[in-house]
Amino acid sequence: MKKIKAIGVLTSGGDAPGMNAAIRAVVRTAITNGIRVYGIKRGYNGLYHGDMFEMNLRSVSDIINRGGTILYTARSKEFNSPEGVLKAKEQCEKAGLDAIVCIGGDGTFRGALDLSRVGVPCVGIPGTIDNDIGCSEYTIGYDTAMNTAMEMIDKIRDTAQSHDRCSVIEVMGRRAGYIAVNTGIACGASAICIPEHPFSLEKDFLEKVRANQKTGKRHFIVLVAEGVGGVQQMAEEIEAKTGIETRATILGHVQRGGAPSLRDRVVASQMGYHAVKLLLDGKGGRIVAMQSEKIIDLDIEEALATKKTLDPALIDMNDEISI
Amino acid sequence: MKKIKAIGVLTSGGDAPGMNAAIRAVVRTAITNGIRVYGIKRGYNGLYHGDMFEMNLRSVSDIINRGGTILYTARSKEFNSPEGVLKAKEQCEKAGLDAIVCIGGDGTFRGALDLSRVGVPCVGIPGTIDNDIGCSEYTIGYDTAMNTAMEMIDKIRDTAQSHDRCSVIEVMGRRAGYIAVNTGIACGASAICIPEHPFSLEKDFLEKVRANQKTGKRHFIVLVAEGVGGVQQMAEEIEAKTGIETRATILGHVQRGGAPSLRDRVVASQMGYHAVKLLLDGKGGRIVAMQSEKIIDLDIEEALATKKTLDPALIDMNDEISI
Amino acid sequence: MKKIKAIGVLTSGGDAPGMNAAIRAVVRTAITNGIRVYGIKRGYNGLYHGDMFEMNLRSVSDIINRGGTILYTARSKEFNSPEGVLKAKEQCEKAGLDAIVCIGGDGTFRGALDLSRVGVPCVGIPGTIDNDIGCSEYTIGYDTAMNTAMEMIDKIRDTAQSHDRCSVIEVMGRRAGYIAVNTGIACGASAICIPEHPFSLEKDFLEKVRANQKTGKRHFIVLVAEGVGGVQQMAEEIEAKTGIETRATILGHVQRGGAPSLRDRVVASQMGYHAVKLLLDGKGGRIVAMQSEKIIDLDIEEALATKKTLDPALIDMNDEISI
Amino acid sequence: MKKIKAIGVLTSGGDAPGMNAAIRAVVRTAITNGIRVYGIKRGYNGLYHGDMFEMNLRSVSDIINRGGTILYTARSKEFNSPEGVLKAKEQCEKAGLDAIVCIGGDGTFRGALDLSRVGVPCVGIPGTIDNDIGCSEYTIGYDTAMNTAMEMIDKIRDTAQSHDRCSVIEVMGRRAGYIAVNTGIACGASAICIPEHPFSLEKDFLEKVRANQKTGKRHFIVLVAEGVGGVQQMAEEIEAKTGIETRATILGHVQRGGAPSLRDRVVASQMGYHAVKLLLDGKGGRIVAMQSEKIIDLDIEEALATKKTLDPALIDMNDEISI
Repeated sequence: MKKIKAIGVLTSGGDAPGMNAAIRAVVRTAITNGIRVYGIKRGYNGLYHGDMFEMNLRSVSDIINRGGTILYTARSKEFNSPEGVLKAKEQCEKAGLDAIVCIGGDGTFRGALDLSRVGVPCVGIPGTIDNDIGCSEYTIGYDTAMNTAMEMIDKIRDTAQSHDRCSVIEVMGRRAGYIAVNTGIACGASAICIPEHPFSLEKDFLEKVRANQKTGKRHFIVLVAEGVGGVQQMAEEIEAKTGIETRATILGHVQRGGAPSLRDRVVASQMGYHAVKLLLDGKGGRIVAMQSEKIIDLDIEEALATKKTLDPALIDMNDEISI
Repeated sequence: MKKIKAIGVLTSGGDAPGMNAAIRAVVRTAITNGIRVYGIKRGYNGLYHGDMFEMNLRSVSDIINRGGTILYTARSKEFNSPEGVLKAKEQCEKAGLDAIVCIGGDGTFRGALDLSRVGVPCVGIPGTIDNDIGCSEYTIGYDTAMNTAMEMIDKIRDTAQSHDRCSVIEVMGRRAGYIAVNTGIACGASAICIPEHPFSLEKDFLEKVRANQKTGKRHFIVLVAEGVGGVQQMAEEIEAKTGIETRATILGHVQRGGAPSLRDRVVASQMGYHAVKLLLDGKGGRIVAMQSEKIIDLDIEEALATKKTLDPALIDMNDEISI
Repeated sequence: MKKIKAIGVLTSGGDAPGMNAAIRAVVRTAITNGIRVYGIKRGYNGLYHGDMFEMNLRSVSDIINRGGTILYTARSKEFNSPEGVLKAKEQCEKAGLDAIVCIGGDGTFRGALDLSRVGVPCVGIPGTIDNDIGCSEYTIGYDTAMNTAMEMIDKIRDTAQSHDRCSVIEVMGRRAGYIAVNTGIACGASAICIPEHPFSLEKDFLEKVRANQKTGKRHFIVLVAEGVGGVQQMAEEIEAKTGIETRATILGHVQRGGAPSLRDRVVASQMGYHAVKLLLDGKGGRIVAMQSEKIIDLDIEEALATKKTLDPALIDMNDEISI
Repeated sequence: MKKIKAIGVLTSGGDAPGMNAAIRAVVRTAITNGIRVYGIKRGYNGLYHGDMFEMNLRSVSDIINRGGTILYTARSKEFNSPEGVLKAKEQCEKAGLDAIVCIGGDGTFRGALDLSRVGVPCVGIPGTIDNDIGCSEYTIGYDTAMNTAMEMIDKIRDTAQSHDRCSVIEVMGRRAGYIAVNTGIACGASAICIPEHPFSLEKDFLEKVRANQKTGKRHFIVLVAEGVGGVQQMAEEIEAKTGIETRATILGHVQRGGAPSLRDRVVASQMGYHAVKLLLDGKGGRIVAMQSEKIIDLDIEEALATKKTLDPALIDMNDEISI
């Protein structure tokens, strides 16, 4: 890889709190080390269209505490083709970009792989609230999203408790139950329903309700991951079978936004910093990740092939203590 | 009215943040003035069944900052009949209760009127997040609910902005647009859709979008009161007509819970205090209310007959500044 | 007053949450009504030095939810003299400004009066967290500051309760006890110590502690306004006289910042809107204010001469319920 | 170790958010597995005096989201002697307690070691906001305290920015800089001053200020750990040497309280669960800890002898990106 003089940075896929902290770290680390940085707007879409601007130290002032992404994000149909990737490469050459830092999820990393293969070195940073990146224990936005969901459920709990109700609550997580499991534990949910595990309403919840009612428990929370869905139907079934007034709530997009938590800011800063250090060391085609709380990096293909599994012990634990 | 020696306090209807602060003020003011207080559980339901307990100064410790209601709340079919009201009166006599403080909305006040007519002096306190009590400019829970909605919309804004999206958001308010109008102003909503006013999607929103787009605006928020509803359908229509990616969100029950805001705690304290002072002065059959920021009281029938109207100037103002 | 074509807007004195919402309303209302607007940086200092820039509709996008002031604020020694005021007037003429909207406290209003007298029509908007403006029941930033203080005290309460401690807490309010009284009520403070009232530690607190301890109360909060001060000394005296472990905390500048509350955003929007409407109606030399929850306006001199007094009934009420 | 039939649980030392979640997990795991649990009030003080009560499943309802500790905490002089430890052992025998779960910091663990040595098997859980337990990467309360500090500093930033000021802020951490370093990174502090590292105001801050000012930076934050202190003096020195208006703030006890963050609730639940599982397996004299994000356990003496060091790379990184 040739010596880097200028890089681009983009965010792609769904926005996640902490993306701005990562952008800030990328921009500042680059400039501190004598590299110019261009902000590419709306992900690969902006790269394809050459929609970018040079950033300086002040371009990223006072954004570490802001949700969303100042570089915007979007899907790009045009980029998703061999011609699109070559067009993007041309735009890099035109602007003098020697490498790109791409912040987002698996789709973002596949774009980074495509670009790396045609000769534009890329480094990917995992940014998605769902924590569904196989190679990394942690993804930027995950902690904030869970805390936001938790705070909302804490509020629902007040009403559930005052009315002796059951609340069936859908949290984010299309393919993965990480948010649901951890939020469920943190909110004392009686049952947690995720894509990775089978769920029997009778065995995993109704039996528990009957047992818990004998000890005086009168309000209940069931957490359901987006990837399972069906909360309205489940609420009706619970009310029909138990006689407990039951309400369904979909927490929705609120979980994506808001000021990032400390953990998201710190990890995003570390990952953005690490990404640029890799490029300074002449390493492209890498994904930054967290393993055992350490920031490491992997080859993109290896990263995309890595799987992780949710620890079922967490659900077993919840079954013993949320009673 | 005879001299009061013991009173009951209950919360009825939907729970609202600040109800606990009102209960605390009722209990403490009564005991400070030599009166015993009974907490009646689950509203008129508990009164009908005699489900109550004597409270002391410590019964209401550390609840001023808690959402929901420590006395629980419920609907009561049994109480809603002449026989039910007489049964409730009997329970008062049995427990030695000389009067009741009833915290809730219009339905709660009608129950208080029924009880007053059979000889149980009642004082009502307006507690409902919707602010839909005709005689009072303010109801307990209103400020907290609006701030909760606003904070959630601030988060949605991050995502709407990052993705150049339009968000159509339903907030609480079945019969009244108070939450929608004020939250709409506070969140810079382009349009606000409430039960009290006609709304034309074309004139009140789409025309504005086209004009605003020319000035560079790319993300939009539409606030819809629960009493109007239909956010999913409206989102689809907006996306079809403008080409702007549009998402619908129903904020739901989260708005009912949470630690009460300062305003709700202070007003609830004032109202609870005023309610007991009325009873100490031998006045029953009253509703406590706020008018021009002062705590006053009215006859229950007069209170129930009073109407208030949302100031349309607020919507006009929003039309000039949310552009 | 001649017809207005362009106005300036500035913030002066201490920053307050909601100032940005007021700036936004001023800018948008002016532009909607065909008037150009200039943002003047760092208050009268920027006016004196001609440090200003033309604003458009997008200059105030996404600031309604931000604390601080995008126009910055500062004290200006140079402006505070007859020559300084004339220099500021020259800058207005040079930039073509026909009037100024000045957001701040009493000092800001005196500057507005000086300018009005030399022929630059000004409208003042009360923006200060202390709520210490005589003519207005409400000042921008007041609600946010109180809620911020309250949330901090709620946290201190957790520790005070866990350790059976007394906490002596200083909140903002150099000349006025508004924040202290309302925050004290909202946090269940046993005693509230403000500049407007005499305070006897023995009679107003220690006697109460002894009585409350008999009912089982073990943790206590004393709220002290900044204008009284001396919390460390008071804490030591309390610990010495009661044997209760006592800690002093000064909440400090945290109270000034943060996203504005709904009330601050709505009132700031109304006031900014009203200010420009006055100028459109040819009215200068006015202060916008809130009286009985209505937005009104007064002559600047009249406004500066108006006094308001804190309702002592609030303290009496707190004495009966915080026990 | 004999088969366990009943255990006690206590919290000792400074309170930390998440302690209640740990208590809840201990109580529920024990009861689910057929063991009785006694809550011991005010740490070793309550054990010494036999101040305890049997807990059931409902004793820990609705506390997972509460700051502080429902078991209270205190220092105990009487327990800190060989006689005191024997008296505590007697109380255990009298109440039929076969083991104790002790939640707190190093002092708490030394008490647990003393008790274990006289034949009362103990398991310690690290609960302290400072994260200053050598054997564990994480201690209960740490994440909440840092987020609380960060949110407060975000507010101070609004004012610092509006006034072009420098803020010198003291955060918790008497012996350790963990809170200061991570909060400093998350808030974009220009300099971080901790007990573990030497700090030169000139080299580590003033030189940076001069360089940053050339790029347009006008407001600055310096984070100082409690163990270093001296913020008022440092603020004066900075103002004198740079001419930048500088304010000192001590965040204080607010950092100890508040609803625990998701991470604190989940980790506390895991640790409480693990502690009881150890006792069920016949293992006493252990400390539960987190290493590489896994919950593990160590011998108490080994745990007390283990040291950990703050990663200085975090400070180097901050130096490159907070500019």
